[in-house]
Amino acid sequence: MAAILLDVDGVLHVSGSPIPGAPDAVKRLRADGHRVRFVTNSTTMSRAELGRQLRGMGFAIEDDELQTTGGVAARVLHGKRVLALTMPGILDDLEGLEVIGMNADAVLVGGCDESEEVGRVFSYLNLNRAFLELQAGAELYCLHKNRWWQTADGPKLDAGAFVAGLEYAANTEATVLGKPSPEYFAAALDAIDADPELAWMVGDDFEGDVIGAQRHGMRTVLVRTGKFRPDAVEEAGVQPDAIVSSIAQLPDWLERNF
Amino acid sequence: MAAILLDVDGVLHVSGSPIPGAPDAVKRLRADGHRVRFVTNSTTMSRAELGRQLRGMGFAIEDDELQTTGGVAARVLHGKRVLALTMPGILDDLEGLEVIGMNADAVLVGGCDESEEVGRVFSYLNLNRAFLELQAGAELYCLHKNRWWQTADGPKLDAGAFVAGLEYAANTEATVLGKPSPEYFAAALDAIDADPELAWMVGDDFEGDVIGAQRHGMRTVLVRTGKFRPDAVEEAGVQPDAIVSSIAQLPDWLERNF
Repeated sequence: MAAILLDVDGVLHVSGSPIPGAPDAVKRLRADGHRVRFVTNSTTMSRAELGRQLRGMGFAIEDDELQTTGGVAARVLHGKRVLALTMPGILDDLEGLEVIGMNADAVLVGGCDESEEVGRVFSYLNLNRAFLELQAGAELYCLHKNRWWQTADGPKLDAGAFVAGLEYAANTEATVLGKPSPEYFAAALDAIDADPELAWMVGDDFEGDVIGAQRHGMRTVLVRTGKFRPDAVEEAGVQPDAIVSSIAQLPDWLERNF
Repeated sequence: MAAILLDVDGVLHVSGSPIPGAPDAVKRLRADGHRVRFVTNSTTMSRAELGRQLRGMGFAIEDDELQTTGGVAARVLHGKRVLALTMPGILDDLEGLEVIGMNADAVLVGGCDESEEVGRVFSYLNLNRAFLELQAGAELYCLHKNRWWQTADGPKLDAGAFVAGLEYAANTEATVLGKPSPEYFAAALDAIDADPELAWMVGDDFEGDVIGAQRHGMRTVLVRTGKFRPDAVEEAGVQPDAIVSSIAQLPDWLERNF
């Protein structure tokens, strides 16, 4: 049986509403003997909070099956002094880090959300502080480097802009901790003891999910839900191994083709 | 006689104090028959205000001898609807532009200053607005793309970070209106009817002044005042035609060597 990494936002649910048939599809994948892990670039809530929300939508998921970018950051930056420009919701996941304001070993940039908090976190004062820490030798990390994300009101600027801005100002390059970084996929596969060649990444984001996982040697399935845009597939030089309407079709597709 | 472009900040004065001998050196250059023009990347005050300040320091300079980035922006963007993320001080120079909040033809990013206004201009809300205009087809311009600048309190993050962030988010490339853009040098040389090959750029900024002017085919003199750092010269693969202690030495140097 296969190892399957499932993206969360856009694959299991959109804005808190489960994709029709998704909770049953997850149940069926487990019943068919596949090893499953949930991999999200969400930067707005802790693993515990995300687990609660998913169970509330009807998914049979344990917290320790969820890999969040905050959890990866906590592992990678363990014991370091970190200036964190992140939404407050993920601070619970950053255990083991000394989140501080000065003399940092690392600057960690998280994603944006739709709250007013985003303006306070990504203020000129905070970005200048981060710049000065980088100038003084701190290393730059980010949970992801997304350019924008889709909200009910249309696209919104995401924190990738601030990562790119700090990279330019301090003449450095950020280490991306979430998808599509190889380390992120490697950590998820390690957790279910799987080799990339025999593992599937299922996602709605062509850049983060499909291209990233392919580069890591994995097979990929793109779903036509969430962030899916046909032109992103056409413009890219690469193809996923399969495109399915939604995760609801995945168990049957795997049974026929695997 | 030569055509001479003189940088202002760091060459004529530092933080409002004239470089010793600088007002007399400007007088002498004119008396020796050189055509002189003053070229600044300053983004915090209008041409009229800058002219007043320079005359207050003892420089015999008319406003129309000063080329500011705001003036270049007004020419290049004439008649366009512009979303301007600039310090309020330069708005006077942006005549002929319709500075608006929505449906812009162009987004114009100016430089930072040390006031609290910088936090209001480069807020998440404004950066998001700029991003949405770029997504909708507006073109991105900037007065300069400086990474940081030196203040009495040490380095501070400059607006190049926000330009780079918007370029990344909207997948576009900004047109730089100030130094070191070729158009900026060309406009200054046009104004005094000079060819690049017979013109000198005198500046304290290796990247913006020397490299930019050399690329434009001009001769260059670096002064050891203002932003001058010996290691910037050593690290660069190119050399200015001359390095002088300050603008006070320039008239004699030109007399001996030109």
